[in-house]
Amino acid sequence: VTELRRSKIRQEWVVIAADRAGRPMITGLGEASVTEERSDECPFCVGSESMTPPEIYRVSGPDGAWSVRVVPNKYPAFGGRNDGGRSPRSGLLQRRDGSGAHEVVIETPNHRMRLVDLPESQIVAVLETIAVRARALMANPEHSYVLAFKNHGREAGASLSHSHLQILAMPVVPEAVRRMLSTASAHYDAEGRCVFCDTLEEELRAEARVIEEIDGFVVLAPYDSRMPFEVAIYPLEHACDFATIAGGACNGLARALKRALGRLRFACGDVPYTLVLQTAPNPRSISERYDAWKTLTLAYHWRFELLPRTARLGGVEWGTGVHINTVPPEEAARVLRQAEVDA
Amino acid sequence: VTELRRSKIRQEWVVIAADRAGRPMITGLGEASVTEERSDECPFCVGSESMTPPEIYRVSGPDGAWSVRVVPNKYPAFGGRNDGGRSPRSGLLQRRDGSGAHEVVIETPNHRMRLVDLPESQIVAVLETIAVRARALMANPEHSYVLAFKNHGREAGASLSHSHLQILAMPVVPEAVRRMLSTASAHYDAEGRCVFCDTLEEELRAEARVIEEIDGFVVLAPYDSRMPFEVAIYPLEHACDFATIAGGACNGLARALKRALGRLRFACGDVPYTLVLQTAPNPRSISERYDAWKTLTLAYHWRFELLPRTARLGGVEWGTGVHINTVPPEEAARVLRQAEVDA
Repeated sequence: VTELRRSKIRQEWVVIAADRAGRPMITGLGEASVTEERSDECPFCVGSESMTPPEIYRVSGPDGAWSVRVVPNKYPAFGGRNDGGRSPRSGLLQRRDGSGAHEVVIETPNHRMRLVDLPESQIVAVLETIAVRARALMANPEHSYVLAFKNHGREAGASLSHSHLQILAMPVVPEAVRRMLSTASAHYDAEGRCVFCDTLEEELRAEARVIEEIDGFVVLAPYDSRMPFEVAIYPLEHACDFATIAGGACNGLARALKRALGRLRFACGDVPYTLVLQTAPNPRSISERYDAWKTLTLAYHWRFELLPRTARLGGVEWGTGVHINTVPPEEAARVLRQAEVDA
Repeated sequence: VTELRRSKIRQEWVVIAADRAGRPMITGLGEASVTEERSDECPFCVGSESMTPPEIYRVSGPDGAWSVRVVPNKYPAFGGRNDGGRSPRSGLLQRRDGSGAHEVVIETPNHRMRLVDLPESQIVAVLETIAVRARALMANPEHSYVLAFKNHGREAGASLSHSHLQILAMPVVPEAVRRMLSTASAHYDAEGRCVFCDTLEEELRAEARVIEEIDGFVVLAPYDSRMPFEVAIYPLEHACDFATIAGGACNGLARALKRALGRLRFACGDVPYTLVLQTAPNPRSISERYDAWKTLTLAYHWRFELLPRTARLGGVEWGTGVHINTVPPEEAARVLRQAEVDA
């Protein structure tokens, strides 16, 4: 079982997960060495299904094979024994158990395919799988926040090269998420509108940072980009919770995402990246604690953040949270707009 | 001139510094290739003084040579034209000029010496130089926050291998610092004591995370360590502002720091690291804005944070600010305590 520690002074949580130190580290991702359709050593390949813990969910492919597969993370950051409650406080050093869940979504049976290379229909299946699992995990009110993310490349923290993403159910709403929720709520209280809808409207009017608008999604280089070539993907239609996405909307999202990843590869090559789904906390968890869900449904807006590892973090970022970005997002948008991607 | 952009939703600043994209990137640091006492291409070496912008400050060495040298950063993240005020807001997209200063402290004339290898007396000179420059920069009330930090190794963001650290004067107090100040103030209001003094007392009683107590400084593996083998160095005597450090105290600090770096090298080898000075904002800037300085002097506590790059950040860290640390600080402290370092 992992342990959640509260940083009193930074007002954020840290997970102490000693078991994760044993997980395998990949070799070769980011280089062109991954060329095989399957690998005997890879637990995510077809034929190696017994190497993973028991399957949680699958999308079936042709001939009874699987097309997308969800399994528990063997080295979970959250999960295991779930005693729910807070551990006894020891003065200033607060802690609680890291209960929750940590799942892996294997995006394809094919060892050498990357997310950007998958057919749109396969990306739709991956996105729908995230929504299915998020809904299932949110049935448990102990799961305050569900995070879906993908680390591509070793420098982005990936430990296996076979294309996969991860879903975490956390017993707390992280402070960084709380701050975004509180900004959004304050804006809604003051203006009666979603701060993201307002920002999208301003961005679409300004045009300089918009990469494309496609099938109900806006792809842009955020005004407050932390990294060179950072990209965000927003649904134009207001919605706070990704898990409630309608089946049809996944088609547009898959298209926008595949094209965004293709643009990034065109501009930066096979750069390591992190893809994060920012979405609302579990309503079952929220409504129990404070009556804020109704506001949040109107105030918050889900979106994907695509963070290429195009720069190293240094003392400024670690010491102050202020990011130094050497590529203005207007310039990044110009380059990404011009990238050649499939129509 | 760089530009400071406000992230409305994350409530933090981003610096857009396009000029910095042109700075040189080092080769070979982290490998054993840096063995020469001087290098013709290195702007920080003796004899290459004309390669840097005009010197701001120096500590003299023997025979009229310099021992420590401060020069402006050629690719400043902050600085240049200083028009002080806020730029006109454009709706939700807030910005202001990145006025301030960005200086480089060359820690030694010797190209191959690293901070950990410098004699204690030289480290004292480096620390005193930081205090001198911090005081000078804080004479300007536009400099709301002065940050001193060191990036060691390319993966930690260093762009030149010759041992140096950096000092930034920023026109804002970063939000992450504000949050720490507000926690400290709230604790002081409630308890009448410094939250760091209280934490140190608790840590010294618990012992498990203390690495050593030496010459008035406590070296420990913080309870809320974000990275494996993270280390913090606190002065036992309460003080909020590093810039006011008494000359004598730099001796103890230099000793504690050199030993901490030696322990880290013993445990992890020549791992890239970031060293950050966490200290109070500029009192001249604070007192103008709100009458909180008196509380801060009692509530806040400066310290050094040593963050080895022993893990990669992934989607959890980027998406939620929650760090996953696979080495419990109690285990890190045990290993670091046992390291062989000079007495």
